[in-house]
Order: sequence, then C-alpha cells, then structure tokens
Amino acid sequence: MSSSASASAPAQGQGILVTAGKVHTPFKTELLNEMSSPRFSGKPPHLVGILATKKEDARTYAEFTKKACETIGINFELRLVGEAREGMDGEGVGIDVEEAILEANDDSDVHGIMVYYPIYGGRQDQYLQSVVSPQKDVEGLNHQFLFNLYHNIRFISPLTLRPIPASTSSSSTPASKSTQTDQGPEGSVKSVLPCTPLAIVKVLEHLGVYNKMLEYGDRARGKVITVINRSEVVGRPLAALLANDGARVISVDIDSIVEFSKRPSNSSSQSQTSKFNPHHITTPLPDFTLAQALSISDVVISAVPVQSYKVPTRDLKDGCVCVNVAGEKNFEADVRERASIYVPSVGMMTIAMLQRNLLRLCGYQDKIKEAGL
Amino acid sequence: MSSSASASAPAQGQGILVTAGKVHTPFKTELLNEMSSPRFSGKPPHLVGILATKKEDARTYAEFTKKACETIGINFELRLVGEAREGMDGEGVGIDVEEAILEANDDSDVHGIMVYYPIYGGRQDQYLQSVVSPQKDVEGLNHQFLFNLYHNIRFISPLTLRPIPASTSSSSTPASKSTQTDQGPEGSVKSVLPCTPLAIVKVLEHLGVYNKMLEYGDRARGKVITVINRSEVVGRPLAALLANDGARVISVDIDSIVEFSKRPSNSSSQSQTSKFNPHHITTPLPDFTLAQALSISDVVISAVPVQSYKVPTRDLKDGCVCVNVAGEKNFEADVRERASIYVPSVGMMTIAMLQRNLLRLCGYQDKIKEAGL
Repeated sequence: MSSSASASAPAQGQGILVTAGKVHTPFKTELLNEMSSPRFSGKPPHLVGILATKKEDARTYAEFTKKACETIGINFELRLVGEAREGMDGEGVGIDVEEAILEANDDSDVHGIMVYYPIYGGRQDQYLQSVVSPQKDVEGLNHQFLFNLYHNIRFISPLTLRPIPASTSSSSTPASKSTQTDQGPEGSVKSVLPCTPLAIVKVLEHLGVYNKMLEYGDRARGKVITVINRSEVVGRPLAALLANDGARVISVDIDSIVEFSKRPSNSSSQSQTSKFNPHHITTPLPDFTLAQALSISDVVISAVPVQSYKVPTRDLKDGCVCVNVAGEKNFEADVRERASIYVPSVGMMTIAMLQRNLLRLCGYQDKIKEAGL
Repeated sequence: MSSSASASAPAQGQGILVTAGKVHTPFKTELLNEMSSPRFSGKPPHLVGILATKKEDARTYAEFTKKACETIGINFELRLVGEAREGMDGEGVGIDVEEAILEANDDSDVHGIMVYYPIYGGRQDQYLQSVVSPQKDVEGLNHQFLFNLYHNIRFISPLTLRPIPASTSSSSTPASKSTQTDQGPEGSVKSVLPCTPLAIVKVLEHLGVYNKMLEYGDRARGKVITVINRSEVVGRPLAALLANDGARVISVDIDSIVEFSKRPSNSSSQSQTSKFNPHHITTPLPDFTLAQALSISDVVISAVPVQSYKVPTRDLKDGCVCVNVAGEKNFEADVRERASIYVPSVGMMTIAMLQRNLLRLCGYQDKIKEAGL
C-alpha cells in the first residue's frame, strides 16, 4: 500500500484477487497435524450441527461444514429440528432448537455444537447463543466468550472457561501483562474467539496488514480499518479485536459511525484507577460519513446481509485492501480498480477457525474430565 | 367476562378503568413491611440506576424510579455515563456504560443495578443485560434468569443463583414437582423474574384473570391471551410465563404469530424422555391473523413501542381485558366500548416488582456472605 495514496489518486492497475482457500492452506495442515495426534486416534471429535430453518443459505452452509469436516476427519452430524424437519417422520419431531442444544450440551459424546442462524432472528437468536455450553461453543458466541473478547481477556482457566482471577495469577497486574504476550499465565488456555471475526483477522495477518515485526497485541498499529456492520456476531467483536491489536477502526452501521481504538496504556487517568482489563475505547463520530471513512481506510471490511448493498468503489482509497464477508457481494464488480487486494469471501477460513475452536475445546474438555469436574 | 361473548356481540356499556396504582397498594404495604425489618435498620438497600442515554423517556423513568424508591426508603443513586453526561465535568467522564455496570457489580456497597434501555438498541443492549451480575440484577434480564423463566425453573440455590442440580434435591424428579407448588426444595429461593412481565402477571392476578381456586402453576388455565410484541424483554418472557401458568397465549409480532401453551404433563412421549424441565411449547400459526386472535382473546396485552400502533377496538372480543404496556397508548380511545376492563399503564407495578426483586436479592447476598463465598 502506498502511504501517499488517496481517494483521488489515479488507479495503478487492477488489484489482486486473494481467495480464502489460499489463506486456508497452512491452517488445514495444522488441523490435519492435530487430528493425527493420539488423542483423536480411533475417536475423532464429534461436532453436532443444529439446523432449525428451511432457509436455503443455512442448509448450504451446513453441507459445506459437513464436507470440510469430512476432509480432515471430524465426525460431523447434522441434526434437523423444527421447520427444517418439515415433511419428515420419526425421532426429533417436536423437539425445538433450544431442546436440541440442551441435549447436545448434556451428551458426553458430543464435543462441539454449532447452530445455523438466523432462526428466529434478532434477540431470540442471541438468547440461544448463550444456551450453548461454553465447553462446546465452537462458534465462540456465548456471552462469556464475547465478554472476554470485548475486555481483551485472552487467557482463561481450562476448568471453568472463565477468566483466571487476579489473585491466583503470578503477576500483580495480570490482565494488562498477559494481554501483551501470546502466552498466558501458567496453566491458562486461550479464550474462544467467534469464528468469523477470527477468520477475518487471520486473513488480514496473511495479507500482511498485521505486521509481525510489531509486538503481539500491537500488530495492527498504524492501520485505519473501516468495518461496515456492527452486529454482535461479526461487526462489533471484529472492531474490538482489531482495536485491541492497535488499529484505528471506524465502525459503520445503518444509524451511526463509531471509532474503536486501543486504550492508551498509561496516559488516561481512568486506566490507572480501573480495576478492569485494559480494552478498546469507543468514540462516537456523529459528523463522519462513510465516504470520509473510506477515503482514509487502509482496509475495508463489509458484512452487510443485503443483496443491494454495495460499497462505492469511487470512495475507496487507492491501494486499500477490501474484504467481503457477506453472502451477497458487498463490493462493486470494479472494486479492484482501486483495491490492491480483494478477498471475495472468508467462508472457508470461518470453517477452519470453527474446527480449530473444536480441537481446542476437546483439549479443555479433557482437562475438565481429568480434574474430575 | 361472558363466555358467549364474541367480537360481533353488541357492546354492553363502558368497561372500567383500572390503574396500576390500585393494583400497587398491597405490594407497597408488603415492601414497607420488609423495609422495616432489622436487616435494613440504618442501612437501607442501595440501588444504582445507570443512565447512558439522552433520551427523555429514559430520564423520566429514572426520576420516577428515584421517587418511588424514596417513598419506601430505598437509597436510589442515579449514575450518568456516556452521552447522558454531555456538558458535565468531573468524575465518570469517559467511563462507558459497561464499565459503570462492572464497577457497580464489584462494589459491595451496591445491592442492586438497573440500566435504562434502550442505549445502543438491539443486540448490544442484550449483551449489556448479561453483564449485570445476577446477584444484583433487579430487572431479571440476565441470561441466567431468562433461561430459568423459559424453562419454568422457579427455584434456585441462593448461593449460586443457579438451578439446584437434580441430585441434591429431595425429589427424584424435582423439576416437574417443584414447578407445581409455590414452595421449592428446602433451602431454595425463588428465581428472579423480569420486572415488566412479572408486573403484568400481578395485574392479571389482581383483575381475577388468574383463578386462585386452581392449583399454583395452573391458574391461568382456560384463558386465551393475546400478547402483541415478542421481544426478549417483555413479550416472549411474558408469553412463556402465562403459558407455564396454563393460558393459551397467542404471541403476535411484526412478522409472525406463534402460540405458546403449557406442555401436557404426561401425554407427549417427549416429555417422558426429556431430561429437561417441563416448560411451555410453541406452535407457529402461519395462517392466523391478529383479528382472529383478538376475536377469541379473553385478555389482550400490547407492548409496541410505536406511537402510531393501535389495536383496533372493533376486533376485540366483547368483555375482554386490555392491558397497555407501551409508553405510547396502543389502544384506541374507545377501547372501553368493548373491553370490560382497561389498564392504561403498568409502570408503577414494574417499579414495585423491581423493588421486590431488590429486597429479595439483598437476602440472597446475605446468604452468600454468610457462606463466605
């Protein structure tokens, strides 16, 4: 990316197209490696997908997950409930999605659960996300995991899947210390991050937006990133993740524009007195427009689930990186006239992150069993 | 209510108007009684209200809460954060609503927390509801309490505020037993119910819609109740509460109509094999209309936060009971032409339920302290 690029600069030739498949390769190798460990010998992890809607997109995504799981040897089982069963007989009739989740939570033969949303839409779906046991929440959408993400709590106890209390940790200010390394306190494990935001971060790492020369927790420093969508599933957790990694994030939603940025480590009086983990701060930008945001953004990520929504190519900063997260394409056909890199979909990486979460959770479940909990 | 009444029957004169103030009287007496107990002598409960919005409605509601708390001796403190502080100086500047909740969670001098919604609206507000500690959640909107409500789990351990595990309970099928009495297993306490749905149930009890001749958990049996709105704050929890008490509930929202009804206690094969607490079942009614629902409803409850929304009086069943829950009036001026009873607002009862939840939580907090947890 040219540092002198601006929205008005002339296009310097077509940008490159990068598919999630390319980003995916090293993660697939890592997953296959882990799958060959003795832990899984003869007893592959069992992932249950719960499909409770007739919507074609959800069914396609379920089949895509199944295939991706079979490729690396994960035992994927799709359970149909509610209207997804229409016209079918037999077991499961009348069981609703919440009961299906509770059954899978209680079943020791199930290691991970993923639910295909939207079902009811909105708040009822968010309620269901927290019904999934954190022990099996491969999607990372449980309130507990979202809370950890928003508070930049990266390490948890494998036994409780909750943040490790300060008193039992080795450092006197464990939170602020532990967030700045990629190793947590002894005995801790990583918190589970929501698959889609995590997949996007991995894509940005692959594209060099994250600079590995910089310290862990600061690798997106200097980057301006516009994220279009502020849902609790993609946009807001993604904005928080990127801000906690040092980026200046402009979060654009239908009714407002808000900046997410990293909290200064020692400049604000409040961070010294706060008992809570240092995490991103948000600032409303009431007079800011999407066009202004795009004109200064090194990266533009769009996740708007509306077919007609398009990010105007003419407003993009020349040489920027564009990532489409929506099922529908949120960028215009000529996006590469301005973008130096365009990623049309992250779906394959989302599944890889879901699989990685599953294998991690299997490890945590083993520790919980060993401890006799 | 005449059992032969139908929507086409002629009006039999103006229905009566019942204000929440009338329903409120015995609850106020009960609250004042409890406040005079030695537990609160010299140290009244401390309720913190968190106001993070400039919206006039929220500020009015906060002032209303303050006044109602002063009346019975609760120490109410309003904390302004975010845009509610605009133009003010001093402490608290820059603290956001989530940090304000976390500070109050951690402060042993605070016994209850209420947050004035909407702030961000939608899912981000729902996230905040679960940030409030269950120990201090006077609104009963934490995921844990909503889960209990939806699963008809009425009794919890005072120490964990979680359902009492089956193994430690006296009965072999504790859930199904305990739901049918107003006394839980020994040492258990009542789960906290969301204030507004609970306030509406208390109003319906006062109006005789709940029949005390019937068994606890079955007192709304035989009643058809239309609930307009299916949010996770009012409509869906209310529909579940009423269905678990035996009513046939027609839940109407902008995009669908769903029936909530009590699960048959022994007729369905699934209730015999289910490990989970018997709770309401839902059935979509794709071909049903609001007018059809109203024509058969003994009770109509509306909670639509839109000024222009009105329930058509002409569609109401003659002699029905109408309860308006919205700030805006959801019933037409002539509603009493058809309704035998009309309740224009439940706000005063909502506050009373909030206060009752606060006093209960104070008791639970004492038990937690006594146990040294």
